[in-house]
Amino acid sequence: MFNRFFSKRIKNTPPSFIREILKVTQNPEIISFAGGLPNPVSFPQEELKISMNRIADKYGAKIYQYSTTMGLDSLRQYIADRYKKLWGMDITIENVIITTGSQQALDLIGKVFVDEGDNVMVEKPSYLGLLQAFCLYQANFVPVSLNDDGLDIDDLKRVISEYKPKVAYLIPNFQNPTGLTYTLENREKVFDVIKDEDLILVQDDPYGELRFEDAERIPYIGLNKSDKNIYLGSFSKIVTPGMRLGYIIANKEIIKMLETAKQASDLHSNIFGQYLISDYLYNNDLDKHIEKIKKLYKTQAAAMVGAMEEYFPKEVKFTRPKGGMFSWVTLKEGTDVLKLFDRAIEKKVAFVPGHPFYVNPQSVNTLRLNYTNADENTIKTGIIRLAEALGEV
Amino acid sequence: MFNRFFSKRIKNTPPSFIREILKVTQNPEIISFAGGLPNPVSFPQEELKISMNRIADKYGAKIYQYSTTMGLDSLRQYIADRYKKLWGMDITIENVIITTGSQQALDLIGKVFVDEGDNVMVEKPSYLGLLQAFCLYQANFVPVSLNDDGLDIDDLKRVISEYKPKVAYLIPNFQNPTGLTYTLENREKVFDVIKDEDLILVQDDPYGELRFEDAERIPYIGLNKSDKNIYLGSFSKIVTPGMRLGYIIANKEIIKMLETAKQASDLHSNIFGQYLISDYLYNNDLDKHIEKIKKLYKTQAAAMVGAMEEYFPKEVKFTRPKGGMFSWVTLKEGTDVLKLFDRAIEKKVAFVPGHPFYVNPQSVNTLRLNYTNADENTIKTGIIRLAEALGEV
Repeated sequence: MFNRFFSKRIKNTPPSFIREILKVTQNPEIISFAGGLPNPVSFPQEELKISMNRIADKYGAKIYQYSTTMGLDSLRQYIADRYKKLWGMDITIENVIITTGSQQALDLIGKVFVDEGDNVMVEKPSYLGLLQAFCLYQANFVPVSLNDDGLDIDDLKRVISEYKPKVAYLIPNFQNPTGLTYTLENREKVFDVIKDEDLILVQDDPYGELRFEDAERIPYIGLNKSDKNIYLGSFSKIVTPGMRLGYIIANKEIIKMLETAKQASDLHSNIFGQYLISDYLYNNDLDKHIEKIKKLYKTQAAAMVGAMEEYFPKEVKFTRPKGGMFSWVTLKEGTDVLKLFDRAIEKKVAFVPGHPFYVNPQSVNTLRLNYTNADENTIKTGIIRLAEALGEV
Repeated sequence: MFNRFFSKRIKNTPPSFIREILKVTQNPEIISFAGGLPNPVSFPQEELKISMNRIADKYGAKIYQYSTTMGLDSLRQYIADRYKKLWGMDITIENVIITTGSQQALDLIGKVFVDEGDNVMVEKPSYLGLLQAFCLYQANFVPVSLNDDGLDIDDLKRVISEYKPKVAYLIPNFQNPTGLTYTLENREKVFDVIKDEDLILVQDDPYGELRFEDAERIPYIGLNKSDKNIYLGSFSKIVTPGMRLGYIIANKEIIKMLETAKQASDLHSNIFGQYLISDYLYNNDLDKHIEKIKKLYKTQAAAMVGAMEEYFPKEVKFTRPKGGMFSWVTLKEGTDVLKLFDRAIEKKVAFVPGHPFYVNPQSVNTLRLNYTNADENTIKTGIIRLAEALGEV
């Protein structure tokens, strides 16, 4: 009835597939590996309650008033300090802008860089939230294949020379949806290919802190070597997603443009949440808290991988994540994953079929499993049900 | 250095003029009428502190977890109930979507309705946040003149027949920046002109609850007579702006599209804030709280209007608001308001020159004054300073 009013951009943007699946999985009997919810253990509830009372007493009306678009100085300072310490970045708070979750970071980057038809390089598969966000800016996606060690370098060279993308969006750590991490060697090769190109490289890193195997962090692609690098981070997976607080680190000139885009998008992110998280971070040991989350996720990932090894048919492949929240399953060529989804729902287990993670999904035989939101026994039971469903397709 | 990367849309979007002015007014000696900040009396701080502890105890992890794009059911129910009661609207929570402040509502409406070059009707002058938001979607603005009683009907007819706008954006109550309110008669005439047009009418209403004179509310344009009406509301001016919580009420088909746009924009608005405001609303008397704000703003508005009557030269015109937060001043034809701004800053008083509220500002002799964020004496002192500055231009 209103179709004639709707913009071309929105008519070409699919509603989130996952949000549709979540409706099916409202049934509490269904074991859901479909979401991407952090385990509530990652919310430091007691500490946050102390912090909220403290900021109410300490700052009064300020925590309820309008605030600056760039975000709370103390929170931006914490982020700048952490990245300086971890990565030796030469940055100040002027290089940091707070966003309403990482999803808004994607929206703002779309606003600032993407004109209709601009080529944007993405991983194949990529984060569906990015595909959705940039779809609204009418990007032309050019996907590059992923291997176990990161981007396929030959495919990367082909895409770069054929399409000259303006923006590349990569998730080098515990990628969503695959759970894969680019090796150091792969990152160096990627940078060699792109370093002389006219290309803005966005590295999204919501899961980087959740490395539960191989303690050493791997540096970002082109770390401290390129002004055209943009880094995204988030408190969603290590403190709380409900506050919707993420951030962008970039060159000041880029941040300035993102600030204008953010003014137009929501004026500023909720300031109460910024005071709360800032107070929490300065009064608690974040790294100690992250250790607790990692320990749990390691156990949960091991439970899922172990169960898949035991119960899945041998021809089914899956990733063995060293961090993050997901494993990516590749079924026998030609298996219809949507048919599997229907069988799985009958057996009361849910997952995300691979489709929404591809730019042009066709004959998809992949699926995403999340292991962070169920205990070990539930994970095992769910995988057994899924294995039974696999036997029927 | 990065100019070649930036999108056409962002290069055409001006940074917020007001945010630039706010930097000048950081000096505590300056009396600022430039902002649009609610008086902190409008934040029920004690009650919110009780509510935050209650929701922490009652809902646990839920207040920190990811949540639904549409928003918290209980909050949407409160809004639906209030609009049913106040306006007899036949709506359910399916007609309500929560947004990250009203500014996000504007961004989402731009995403969903505006293609490059689409004609969007706005008031002259209009809210600068709308101009900025829709600029990013490359709208072609078609302004309609405002008179003391609302839209200029002849100008409206001309614009409608000449441009056939797809979307109209109006602020019928205590308009920003002018403080004007459309009369009932004007609203009826406006509806007569547009009712058979293919036009989405957005009525933004952040100030409607703040009617401190003439107790009776005036119904929206085309209230309950058009499926093409979209209503915006906000908790920013009556509870707290810092939480960034607003909402859109519209036909379900439109809400569905806005939901997809919101998924891509920030997944959902901060859920802690939604639980908090919802708990506050169900456990306190909002109308009683609003009475307190209105009483204060009435005194503050009277102080400003009284001082302007006493000290401003007779040829200076200004609006006498019956609610909301602003008065709009029109200087003698040909006066350079930017020159006045410089003189005013020297005398330590600030305001917003009219420019950012116009689509094509030229020879602007208007300015906006905010009276909600200073006490009566400060307002008087500020107006005296401004009158002195007026004597020098």
